[in-house]
Amino acid sequence: MNIGIAQINPIVGDFPGNAKKILAAYRECLEAGAELVITPELSLVGYPPRDLVFKSQFVPKCLQALDYLAGEIREVPLLVGYVDQLPATQPGKPFRNAAAWLEGGEIRHRIWKTLLPTYDVFDERRYFEPSEFCDPIVWKNHRIGVTICEDIWAEDYLQRPFYERDPVEELVGKGIDLLLNLSASPFHLGKPRLRRSMIGAIAREAKVPLIYCNAVGANDQLIFDGHSLVADSNGEILTQLAGFLPECQVVNPFQNAKTHPLPQEDDSADLYHALVLGVRDYVTKCGFSSVCLGLSGGIDSALTAAIAAAALGPENVVGLTMPSPYSSRGSVEDSFALARNLGIECTEISIAAPFEAIKTAMQPRFADKAEDVTEENMQARIRGVLLMALSNKENHLLLTTGNKSELAVGYCTIYGDMCGGLAVISDLPKIRVFEVSRWINREREIIPWNTIEKPPSAELRPDQKDQDTLPPYEILDQILELYVEHQLGADEIVSRGFDEATVHWIQRRVDLNEWKRHQAAPGLRVTSKAFGIGRRMPIVQRFNG
Amino acid sequence: MNIGIAQINPIVGDFPGNAKKILAAYRECLEAGAELVITPELSLVGYPPRDLVFKSQFVPKCLQALDYLAGEIREVPLLVGYVDQLPATQPGKPFRNAAAWLEGGEIRHRIWKTLLPTYDVFDERRYFEPSEFCDPIVWKNHRIGVTICEDIWAEDYLQRPFYERDPVEELVGKGIDLLLNLSASPFHLGKPRLRRSMIGAIAREAKVPLIYCNAVGANDQLIFDGHSLVADSNGEILTQLAGFLPECQVVNPFQNAKTHPLPQEDDSADLYHALVLGVRDYVTKCGFSSVCLGLSGGIDSALTAAIAAAALGPENVVGLTMPSPYSSRGSVEDSFALARNLGIECTEISIAAPFEAIKTAMQPRFADKAEDVTEENMQARIRGVLLMALSNKENHLLLTTGNKSELAVGYCTIYGDMCGGLAVISDLPKIRVFEVSRWINREREIIPWNTIEKPPSAELRPDQKDQDTLPPYEILDQILELYVEHQLGADEIVSRGFDEATVHWIQRRVDLNEWKRHQAAPGLRVTSKAFGIGRRMPIVQRFNG
Repeated sequence: MNIGIAQINPIVGDFPGNAKKILAAYRECLEAGAELVITPELSLVGYPPRDLVFKSQFVPKCLQALDYLAGEIREVPLLVGYVDQLPATQPGKPFRNAAAWLEGGEIRHRIWKTLLPTYDVFDERRYFEPSEFCDPIVWKNHRIGVTICEDIWAEDYLQRPFYERDPVEELVGKGIDLLLNLSASPFHLGKPRLRRSMIGAIAREAKVPLIYCNAVGANDQLIFDGHSLVADSNGEILTQLAGFLPECQVVNPFQNAKTHPLPQEDDSADLYHALVLGVRDYVTKCGFSSVCLGLSGGIDSALTAAIAAAALGPENVVGLTMPSPYSSRGSVEDSFALARNLGIECTEISIAAPFEAIKTAMQPRFADKAEDVTEENMQARIRGVLLMALSNKENHLLLTTGNKSELAVGYCTIYGDMCGGLAVISDLPKIRVFEVSRWINREREIIPWNTIEKPPSAELRPDQKDQDTLPPYEILDQILELYVEHQLGADEIVSRGFDEATVHWIQRRVDLNEWKRHQAAPGLRVTSKAFGIGRRMPIVQRFNG
Repeated sequence: MNIGIAQINPIVGDFPGNAKKILAAYRECLEAGAELVITPELSLVGYPPRDLVFKSQFVPKCLQALDYLAGEIREVPLLVGYVDQLPATQPGKPFRNAAAWLEGGEIRHRIWKTLLPTYDVFDERRYFEPSEFCDPIVWKNHRIGVTICEDIWAEDYLQRPFYERDPVEELVGKGIDLLLNLSASPFHLGKPRLRRSMIGAIAREAKVPLIYCNAVGANDQLIFDGHSLVADSNGEILTQLAGFLPECQVVNPFQNAKTHPLPQEDDSADLYHALVLGVRDYVTKCGFSSVCLGLSGGIDSALTAAIAAAALGPENVVGLTMPSPYSSRGSVEDSFALARNLGIECTEISIAAPFEAIKTAMQPRFADKAEDVTEENMQARIRGVLLMALSNKENHLLLTTGNKSELAVGYCTIYGDMCGGLAVISDLPKIRVFEVSRWINREREIIPWNTIEKPPSAELRPDQKDQDTLPPYEILDQILELYVEHQLGADEIVSRGFDEATVHWIQRRVDLNEWKRHQAAPGLRVTSKAFGIGRRMPIVQRFNG
C-alpha cells in the first residue's frame, strides 16, 4: 500500500489557505501513486491555535472548511487534522483535537486525540477533551490505527509517566496492521534523533509499520521541523522526510526498501536551519517582507543578521551601526565588513548627539549625580528609538539580537537592545552562538573572524568587557543549563563542583530578571526549555532555592 | 462551634514569611475563641506558584515548612493549603493542590483538590493531579467536608459544565454537617456578588453551614479580594470579611446571628480598591518602595497617579511632565495641579531638544521624507527613555498608564508610553477610567476636573484628538467588550446594530496589535477577560471572523 505523506506548513487560523495547501499536497501525492494521504496534526488549523478556538466563529469556520475539503476528496482517502466540537451540555472542555478520514466526498471517520499534553509549551487540557476510546479503522484489507501526536509518546520518552492510558497498546490489542500518526511536534536540539529512536521502537514493539507525518514551519515561538518518518514492522526507519522544509513523499511501508540513507546530523546545522525557518515564517506570516537590526560589531547581531539574510534574502535586511563615544572604531568596521560579506545594507548613525541631549534634558532632576548604569541603559535605549524609527518609517520588522545567556541574567536593556518583534537567538546560549557562527564560516568568512574572536563587550562605558560583569561564558552557560533547563536548586548545582558565590549570583540574577523577560519579544525555541511559553514563572515571588 | 477565618495575604514562594503570617493569624483566632482555624487555598505557598513548583527544591521546602507549622499546632486544628507530591512512579502530574489538617503537633489529614480549573487565568492541570475521592473528616461530634476553591464551583456559575464530578454532592451523600472551603479566588468586577449568591445557594442546597475562606492580596496580574463568607444551613450569609484587606474573624456558623449588615457595593469603589491593593502588593512584594510615572495632563496618567498615591503614600510617587512642541500649556498645568492635589512630586522635562537631536541623527537615512507616525512614536519613546532613566537613577518602579481600550486597538507606543514594570489600569476600559476618576472626586477635586472634562488627546501632532483616529469611546468600549470579552465574531457584533466598517476596523486593530500586547507590562486584572495570562492569542495567525 502506497501512503502519501504530506509534510505541509500551515498558518494558524488560515482555513482557506491551509485547505489549499492540503489539496495541493494531496494531488501531488495522488500523482505519485498514493492510495491514502496523511497530513500533520491540526493541519487545517495550524498548531497551536491557542485561544483563537474560543472565538465564536473559529470552530464553525473550521468545520465549514473541513466540509469543503471532504467534497474535494474522491476514492483516495485523506487524513486531515481539525478542531471538533462537543455538544454544549456534555461535561468537559468544549473541543476535541481531531482528525478526519475523508473519502468519497464525505467525512467517513472522526478520530479524537487521547493523550493531551499539558506541560512545557503545551496547553491542550485548556481546550480539549480526551477521546474515551481508540478503535482501528477498517479499510480495504487493512486495520489501521490512527493516532494524533502525543498518543504515541510512550512513557520512556516523557519526563515522567504522565498518562494512565496507552493508545498504541489499546489499538494493538484490538488488532491493527498499520499505525498512522498525525503530528505537530516542535523542534528542539536532539529532538529529531529522539523521535527516530522512538518511532522505530514503537513499530518494533507493535510489529506493524508506522507512518509519522509531522508539520513543518514556525508559528510564533515554536519551530516544527518536519522530519516525518516511516518505520517498517521491524522498527527499521525506511525513510525520513526533509528537515525544515515542506515535502510530499509516497512510501510503501510494507516493502522493506530504504529509500534514502539518513542524512548526517550536526547540532549547529540543525540550529541554523531551525532559526532560518523560524525567521522566515515569523516575518512573512506576519505580512512583512524585510527586517532591520542593530549591528554592534559583536557576534550576536552578526549571527542574527546572517540568519536573517539566509531567511529573507540579503536585499531584505537593513543594518544600523550606531556608535557611541564608547564604541571602538573596530566595531563599526566589523559591522560594515559583515554587511559586505552578507550583501546587506548598512547605515551608520552616531548616537553621540542624542545621548548628550538626553543627559542635558535630565539635568533638572539629576543635577550633578555621578553617571552610573542609568547612562549605560540610556545609550541602549536611544539605539532602540533609532531602530524603531527605521522600522516605522521603512516598514521593516525589527529583529532583536540578544542570546539566552544574556537574557537569563538580565545582561540586556529593556526597551533598549531588547526592542524588536522577534528575538532570533534568544534561546541560544552564548557558547552555541560561537559554535553556530563558526559553522556558518566553515567554508569561507561570512561573519568576520574578528567579530568571533574578540572578547565580547557591550561598549556602554570605556573599555567595558562582558567578563568584567559576568562569569566566563563556559561556566555561566553550564550553570544556567542546570538552573534554567534542569531547574536544580543552587545547593545541588554547587554540589556538582561549581563555585558557590557564582552559583548564587547567577540564581539571583535569573530570578530578579523575570520582569524583563515578561516583556521580551517572542523568541524562537531551540532547546528543551526556552524562556517563553514553555516556562511560566511568577514575577512577584520570594522562593530561594 | 467557633471557627476562625484567617483571611491572609501570602507571597508566592515565601515559605518562612507565609508560615509566620499563618501562625500570627492562627494565634489571633485562638485568642478570639476559635476551636478550628481555616486559611486560604495554598496559603503556605501563595497562589499561583506557577512553574516554580517544578524547581527541584520547591515542593521539598514547602513540605518542610508544613512540618514546621504542624509542630506549632496543639489542640485547635489548623487547615493550611500546600503543594503535595505524588510518588514518582504514579502516572499523572507530579503534584497535588492540597490542604493539611494540622492538629496535636502533626499532620492529621491531607485533602486534595478534585476539580482543577484549566481555563482563563488558571492552569492547574499543568501541575496537579485531581483527588480521586472526597471523604468527610470526622472530628469531635462533627463530620466536616473540606474542599478547595473550584471544588464547590457548581456548574451554574461556570461558563460551561466543565466537570463530571461534584465534590459537594459526594460529601453530602456521605453525610456532613459542615462544609469548609479554602479559596484563592481572584477578583473581577461583580465577582464578590456572584460568590455570595453561589455560597448561599450551596449551603441552602446542602443544608449545612459553609465557611468560605478566600485569600487577599495581589500576585502579579491577579488581585485576590478577600470577602470571605459564612453561610448558615439556610443559605443565609451570616458574615462577609473585609474586601481587599487581611482580616481574622471567629464565627459560629451554627448560630443564626448576622454579625454585620453587608456593605453597600459600588463598581467604581471596588475597582479603585482592587487597583490600590494591586499596586501596593506588586510594588512592595517586588521590593520597591516608590514609583515614578509620566504625567501627560490626561486622565489615564492622573488616575494612575491617584491610585499609586493611595497605595504607597504621596511621598513615594514621582511624576515627570514632559512637554513636546505639540503639548498644550494646559497639559503641563493640569499635571502640576494634579501633583498638588495628590501631594506628589512633579518635575518638568522638555523633550524638544532630544526630539530634534534624534530627528537630526536619522537624517542620513530619512533625508527629506515627510514626518509621519514615526515621529509621533519617537516622542513617546523619548519619554520612555527619560522615565526609565529616572527609574534607574532613583530606584523607582515605573508605572505605565495605558487603559484597556487603547491597549486593545494599539493606540499606544511600544517602548514608549508602554514602558513600565506594571500596567495599573490596562484592564479598565476608557469609560470606566472616567467613572472611577469621577468617583475619586466624589467629595473634592483630586483629579483636576479639567483633566476629566477635556477631550482626550495624545498630543503627538498639532491639535490631535483621540477621536480623530478612534471611534467615540462609548461605541469603542461596547464593541471591544463584545469582541474581546465575549469573543463574538464581527458579523455577530454587526448584527447587534453596530456600524460594519467600525466593527471591522476595531477587529483588525485588535488582531494586528497582539504583538504589542505580548511585550506589554503585566496588568492588574479587574474584568472577566483581561489581556494577559487569561487570554493567550497567537501573534502569527490569519483567522478573520
